[in-house]
Amino acid sequence: MTKIKQLQNYLKEHSIDAAFITDPYNVFYVSGFQSNPHERLLGVMVFAEAEPFLICPKMEMPDAKNAGWTGEVVGHEDTQNSMEILHNTAQSRGINLKTVAIEKAHMTVDRYDAILSLFSSPTIVQLDDQLNAMRVIKDAAELEILREAAALADYAIEVAAKTIKEGITEIEVMTEIELALKKRGVTHMSFDTTVLAGDKAASPHGKTGDRKLQNGDLVLFDLGVIHKGYCSDITRTLALGEPSDEQKAVYDIVLRAETAALEAVKPGVTAAELDQISRKVIADAGYGEYFTHRLGHGLGIDVHEFPSIHGENPMKMEKGMVFTLEPGIYVPGKVGVRIEDDVAVTADGYEVLTKYPKELQIIIN
Amino acid sequence: MTKIKQLQNYLKEHSIDAAFITDPYNVFYVSGFQSNPHERLLGVMVFAEAEPFLICPKMEMPDAKNAGWTGEVVGHEDTQNSMEILHNTAQSRGINLKTVAIEKAHMTVDRYDAILSLFSSPTIVQLDDQLNAMRVIKDAAELEILREAAALADYAIEVAAKTIKEGITEIEVMTEIELALKKRGVTHMSFDTTVLAGDKAASPHGKTGDRKLQNGDLVLFDLGVIHKGYCSDITRTLALGEPSDEQKAVYDIVLRAETAALEAVKPGVTAAELDQISRKVIADAGYGEYFTHRLGHGLGIDVHEFPSIHGENPMKMEKGMVFTLEPGIYVPGKVGVRIEDDVAVTADGYEVLTKYPKELQIIIN
Repeated sequence: MTKIKQLQNYLKEHSIDAAFITDPYNVFYVSGFQSNPHERLLGVMVFAEAEPFLICPKMEMPDAKNAGWTGEVVGHEDTQNSMEILHNTAQSRGINLKTVAIEKAHMTVDRYDAILSLFSSPTIVQLDDQLNAMRVIKDAAELEILREAAALADYAIEVAAKTIKEGITEIEVMTEIELALKKRGVTHMSFDTTVLAGDKAASPHGKTGDRKLQNGDLVLFDLGVIHKGYCSDITRTLALGEPSDEQKAVYDIVLRAETAALEAVKPGVTAAELDQISRKVIADAGYGEYFTHRLGHGLGIDVHEFPSIHGENPMKMEKGMVFTLEPGIYVPGKVGVRIEDDVAVTADGYEVLTKYPKELQIIIN
Repeated sequence: MTKIKQLQNYLKEHSIDAAFITDPYNVFYVSGFQSNPHERLLGVMVFAEAEPFLICPKMEMPDAKNAGWTGEVVGHEDTQNSMEILHNTAQSRGINLKTVAIEKAHMTVDRYDAILSLFSSPTIVQLDDQLNAMRVIKDAAELEILREAAALADYAIEVAAKTIKEGITEIEVMTEIELALKKRGVTHMSFDTTVLAGDKAASPHGKTGDRKLQNGDLVLFDLGVIHKGYCSDITRTLALGEPSDEQKAVYDIVLRAETAALEAVKPGVTAAELDQISRKVIADAGYGEYFTHRLGHGLGIDVHEFPSIHGENPMKMEKGMVFTLEPGIYVPGKVGVRIEDDVAVTADGYEVLTKYPKELQIIIN
């Protein structure tokens, strides 16, 4: 309940009577209970001056308790109005809720309307910044889990390197990777495993499909695992057969762009600076127009969280922040390369969590 | 663009100037473009009296066009304010937006606030009911896809029946099922494949784990595939080894409850009536307190959509509706049984999309 105490202190300091947290990731962060409630209500209500409670579908109540939540658990059934149950339970605390904090980037308009109407139009303030500020700094236990998650991503690329060959399809390669991970206990990927060959790698968000791998392809792998509730996210681009001079040149530019950003990581550098450092390498090489996305994103319970590493983000890096660095060059129809690491900020620099080699791996078979 | 035309007619009839659709499922439904934008903005803006546009991350613009969207595509980069780009593009249509429809059950409070501020506080109305009304009735093409999706779910249960044996873990069985599906081209499951053995099946939302299967277990499988953007969802409970009299008795009650509801499906019957018919069978047998969830849920692009089949939903069934019927009995620590079919309402009755046998299958090996 450490996170709950931190939140209670925040609420007291800011004269907020209560916070209602419904983003499943934040619910996990503050309660330890992981669940995907679909359209059903799952949330934790935290009060400045009273005991918190967790509200969830009735049938998940035992799971919430087993997950280590020691506070009150309130259940609701599908035939009930769950927002009314929320309101009644909150009322039972005997506190007049004049100011309520919510996650404005998560809460839907209908639940917002329900809170306004049930709680007699309290002042609504956002809790997003505070939750993000807490989640963006990983503690030692979280870092250890993230290291383990990254090691599993490395292993996935090792499997990929052993699996690719002329004639195998992107989907078949993906299946082999995920099967190998399942044998190591991985039950969920962070996002859809991406295997893109040749011209398909030139689409940064292309979908793994029936494209057969051919000698001469660069093959792009973007994948990650969820491990103990935390995500990894790695990209490597491997060469199947001897690469062309252009492929090697583009790869080299991306690698230099990634390395330049990496070596600049330390407390105090801004997200924007990191993005600019990496982008300059690519622009100077004449490929600026083909690097069409931000440099990276924070990583933790969510595969995309704060800090966002983009060219206009003035956020300063701090010890304990974890994010990806993933520059890429995508020349439509021709060549696509991306290299991505998971990086933690340390007291005086950085720790790279993903360890798979970044020199261009050429697979001949 | 048929769906867009339908929406434009709806907007005209209700004097709504524009609708902004951001639920990825609804974006797919109206545009054919399937994407998970994470925290980035993806949406379709439809006007009563002007051409619609699709807004997405810049790097996904080619994919949106390839997906068949023939209208304008507007891209945004990570460093830009995507809501401002939305506003500017809408302004370029030259229409004063006095009333704007949104999905209140999907749109987040921060985007809602942005719309209110950028568009000079238009009247906001909900579009959820109209989109749900469109999506709840499946046309012939959608039904054919749902049949194919259900056939793949049947196949998964066939694989499950061949795989279970004494000593194998729940996760190992899950892996075998998903591998077999991948070989048939399935890239995504509708939700996490659930394999629960013995006492674990007594938790209706338990998680597949390391529990080893033993002779004497009832083993519950709940799974489905996403096929061409549409979901299936099947539950079967198989017996590993000879079941006890209590297991057989509970199974028989659940099967009678499922069959009773199924045989009542036809246009005009209400969701509540179906739920009550099924629930009565279980209550009359003395297990009412152990059936802790609604009877079923609608099925389509989303694995949980309308109609919700619960005891207080007065919605009348209509031809083209597709939903699950999934009664269950969960006696904590003792026995868990659920049987679930995907069902389509026809002109005078029902079509069962899932075909795997429902008599208790006893696996002896």
